[in-house]
Amino acid sequence: MYTKNLFSTVAAVSTPRGKGGIAVVRISGADTAKILEKCFVPKGKPLTERPYRTAVYGDILSGGKIIDSGICTLYEEGRSFTGEMMAELSCHGGVFITREALEAVFAAGAEPAGPGEFTRRAFINGKMSLSEAEAVGQLIDADTKSRAEMASGAVRGNLTSAIGEIDRELLDVMTALYAAIDYPEEDVGTEGEDEILRVVSESARAIDGLRKTYKTGRAVADGVKTVICGRPNVGKSSLYNLLLGEERAIVTDVAGTTRDTLEDTADVGGVTLRLLDTAGIRDTDDKVEKIGVERAYSKLSEAELIICVIDSSSHLDGDDRELIDRLKESSAEKIVVFNKDDLDFALSGDEIGHIKSVTPHTVALSALRGDGKAALEEEIGKIFNEGGLDLSSDAVIWSAAQRASLDRAYDLLEGARRALEDGSPLDAVGVVCEEALAELRMADGRDVSDDIIDGIFSKFCVGK
Amino acid sequence: MYTKNLFSTVAAVSTPRGKGGIAVVRISGADTAKILEKCFVPKGKPLTERPYRTAVYGDILSGGKIIDSGICTLYEEGRSFTGEMMAELSCHGGVFITREALEAVFAAGAEPAGPGEFTRRAFINGKMSLSEAEAVGQLIDADTKSRAEMASGAVRGNLTSAIGEIDRELLDVMTALYAAIDYPEEDVGTEGEDEILRVVSESARAIDGLRKTYKTGRAVADGVKTVICGRPNVGKSSLYNLLLGEERAIVTDVAGTTRDTLEDTADVGGVTLRLLDTAGIRDTDDKVEKIGVERAYSKLSEAELIICVIDSSSHLDGDDRELIDRLKESSAEKIVVFNKDDLDFALSGDEIGHIKSVTPHTVALSALRGDGKAALEEEIGKIFNEGGLDLSSDAVIWSAAQRASLDRAYDLLEGARRALEDGSPLDAVGVVCEEALAELRMADGRDVSDDIIDGIFSKFCVGK
Repeated sequence: MYTKNLFSTVAAVSTPRGKGGIAVVRISGADTAKILEKCFVPKGKPLTERPYRTAVYGDILSGGKIIDSGICTLYEEGRSFTGEMMAELSCHGGVFITREALEAVFAAGAEPAGPGEFTRRAFINGKMSLSEAEAVGQLIDADTKSRAEMASGAVRGNLTSAIGEIDRELLDVMTALYAAIDYPEEDVGTEGEDEILRVVSESARAIDGLRKTYKTGRAVADGVKTVICGRPNVGKSSLYNLLLGEERAIVTDVAGTTRDTLEDTADVGGVTLRLLDTAGIRDTDDKVEKIGVERAYSKLSEAELIICVIDSSSHLDGDDRELIDRLKESSAEKIVVFNKDDLDFALSGDEIGHIKSVTPHTVALSALRGDGKAALEEEIGKIFNEGGLDLSSDAVIWSAAQRASLDRAYDLLEGARRALEDGSPLDAVGVVCEEALAELRMADGRDVSDDIIDGIFSKFCVGK
Repeated sequence: MYTKNLFSTVAAVSTPRGKGGIAVVRISGADTAKILEKCFVPKGKPLTERPYRTAVYGDILSGGKIIDSGICTLYEEGRSFTGEMMAELSCHGGVFITREALEAVFAAGAEPAGPGEFTRRAFINGKMSLSEAEAVGQLIDADTKSRAEMASGAVRGNLTSAIGEIDRELLDVMTALYAAIDYPEEDVGTEGEDEILRVVSESARAIDGLRKTYKTGRAVADGVKTVICGRPNVGKSSLYNLLLGEERAIVTDVAGTTRDTLEDTADVGGVTLRLLDTAGIRDTDDKVEKIGVERAYSKLSEAELIICVIDSSSHLDGDDRELIDRLKESSAEKIVVFNKDDLDFALSGDEIGHIKSVTPHTVALSALRGDGKAALEEEIGKIFNEGGLDLSSDAVIWSAAQRASLDRAYDLLEGARRALEDGSPLDAVGVVCEEALAELRMADGRDVSDDIIDGIFSKFCVGK
C-alpha cells in the first residue's frame, strides 16, 4: 500500500547503481530549495538568486564537511518532471560517493523516495497520464528495439491523445444529448439525432480499433512464448540461430537485466519472441527416445506461437505427421517453416495440403544458408501486427486492464448505438454514453482507484 | 597509446550501466551544438537561442524518428567540465533506450569517447591538474569512507594547492637568484642570501612533509594487506567479525565493484584493510595439522600488516612462541592483540616483555564481547597515519610516481641548501633549484610525458 505523505520532500538516486562518471540524486517536494541550502554550496551566488533550470556548480556538504563537488539544477513548481519543486544534483558516479551524497540529502531533511515515486507524483500532479506513467516503466525495462519504440511512443502521449480525441467526441455527444433532454421543447430533430448516431458509431469504431492493438502491444511488451518444434535433423538449431542472429537482445553484465534469460529473446518482425526452453527441444535432435519427444510436446501447450520446422527436401514421415496432428489440437498461433529450401523440393501437393490445413502461415527458407528471415518476419508480422501498426507513432495498448476497460466502453457504445437506432428515449442513451466515457477514461488512468495506482507504481524501481 | 584527435567531438554514457530512472549521455567538443541540432529537438525555442547551462526539455531523435524525450543542458567553452563546449543529455535510464540515445548522438556526428576522455580533456584544457584528475578515478573507485574522503579532497585541489604554494615560493627564490646572477653589480647581500636559504629550507621541509603522507595515502587508496594470525582458538574469527562489523565495505550486486572480494575489505581507523585469505587462516582453527599452519605462515610474507592474536587468559604455549619468533623475521607492521580481556589476565611480565620485543603496538580487548575496536583503530592510526592527517582537508599523496618526484625534489633542495651554506656560486644553486621545481611540478602532472598521462587515463572507465 502506498502510504507516503505526498507533501514530504523525497530523494533517491535516479541513475543506475554501479560505477560511472556521474550519478544523479533527484529531490522533489516543496522543501527542495531549503534542503539544498544545507547540503549544497554553489560557487558564487546562492541557488535562490539564480534563474530556475540553471546548472550550478558547487560543493556537496555532509555534516558541514565537503564530500564532493557537483552540479545542481533546481526546477520550479509546475515546470519540473514531477510538477513539484524539484532538483537534480549530480555527483561523481562511484558507488560509495553516490550513497554519501544521497545520505547528505537525507540528513538535510529529505525522506527516501519509494519505488516509482517521482513518476507517481508526476501523475498525481497532472504532468502525465497513467498510461504515460506506465510506459515510463516499460521504456526502462525495454530489452528490444520494438519494445523501446512502443513505450517511448506511449511516454510521449500517443495513447493518451488517441483516447483524448474519442473523449472529446463523446463529451460533445453528451452535451447535445443532455441539451435535448433538459430542453425537450427545442427538438434536436432527425438531423441532430443522425449526427449523434454518427458520432457514437465512430467512437465505437475508434475504440474497437484501439482495443484490437492489444494483441500487438502484448506481443511487443511481454513477448510471445515461442516454441520451435520439428522431428530431429530438420534444422531447428539453424532456425534458432537465424532468429537470434544480429537482432539478438542485448546482454549486459548488470544484474537484474537478465531476468528472462536474454539469450532466448529475439526481436523478430517487430515482436519480441521469448524462445521457451529451446535448448531442451534441441536435445531431442540427438535422443529420439519417446521421453524426450513427449517433453517437447508438453512445451507446445505453453506456447503462444509454435514454429514447426519441416524438411522440404524429403517426404513427411510418421514423426512429422504426428506432430502436425498435435498442432491441430493447439490453440497457439502457428507457422510452418519449409526448411532446406536450398535442396530439391520433395513434398507432394497432398502433403502441402495436409500442412496448410493446420495453418495458412507457411514460409520456405534455408536456415542453414541464413536467408528467409525477412519472409518469416513478415509472417510473424501478419499474425501479431495485423493492423500494420507503427509502434513509434500509433496508439497501442498492452495492459489487460486497459483492454478490459475498452471492451466495456465498446459494448456500452454499441448498446447506445442500437438504442438510438431503435428510437429509445435519449436520456437512457445518455446514461449509457456516460458509462462508456467513464470506462474510456479508466483506460487512461483517469478516475481509477488507488489500489490500481498502487499496483502500477509498486513495479517501478526507486529513483524513477 | 592515446591517439584520439582532440579536436573531434566525442560522446559516451556517463552514468553507470544498468537500469535506472535516468541516464546521462555526455558530449564534448566544438561540434556539440551542431550535433545536438540533429538529434535533439527542444520544446519551444532552439537550444542556441537559450542561455547556456539551462536545462531544456525536448525530444531525442534518431534517423528523424523520436526515440525518447529528455533534458539537455549545453555548456559553453571554458565553463564546462572539460573546458570545451559540452552537453549533458539525460534520457530514460533503460539499458536499451540509453544505448539508442548514445547511438543517435553518434549518428549525428559524435565519436565514441575513450576511457577517461572527458577528464583527460579537462586536464589538457587546464580545468584540473593531473593529481585532481587522478583523484576523480580514485573517488569513483572508492569503496570506503576514508578513500572517498581523501579522493574528494584531492579532486577539490588539496594536493594541487599545497604543491602550488611551494612552487610559488621556489619561483620567488629563483627570481631572486637569477637577478643576482644577471646583475652581479647589485649584490644581493648577506640578508638576501639568508632569505634565499630560509625559503629553500622551508620548501624542502614542506616537500618532506608532503612525501611522508605517502604511507597514509597508500594505506587509504590501495589498502593494507592484512593477515590475522594466531594459534587455534585464540579468537581470530571474532576479531575478523569485529573488524568488518558495521564499517564493512559496501557490497553491491553490480559486476565490477567486487574486484577485491569486498567481504574482506574493512575501513578501520581511517585505513582500508584488505584481509588476505582470512577464511583460509580460520580453517586452521579446526585443522592443527602442520600443513595448515605452514600455509598460514606463508601468508605472513605477503602481509603489510600482521595482527597477531594472543589469548591473554592463558600462558604462551609453543605455538604462540613459534609465531612470535616468525613475526620478528617479518618486515610488515605488527599489532599484537591480547584477546579475551573479559577473562582473568594470565600472561606474566616476562611473556609480555617477549611480545613487546616484537612490536610496541599492543591492544587488549575482548573480540567476543565486541569492544576494543576503538583501541585497535587508534593503534592502526598510529602506524598508518602517524601525522594525524585529516583526509578531507590535508594534502595527501598516494601514487608511487608522485612519491618518487617529491623524493628527488627534496634531495635537490637539500643539495641547494648545503651549497648555499657552503657559499657555492649562486648560478649552481639556481640550476639545482630549477631541477627541484621541475620535479615538484611533475608530482602534480605538469610537464609530464604523454606516456605517463596515457597510463593514468587508460585506467578510467568510459564516460568519465
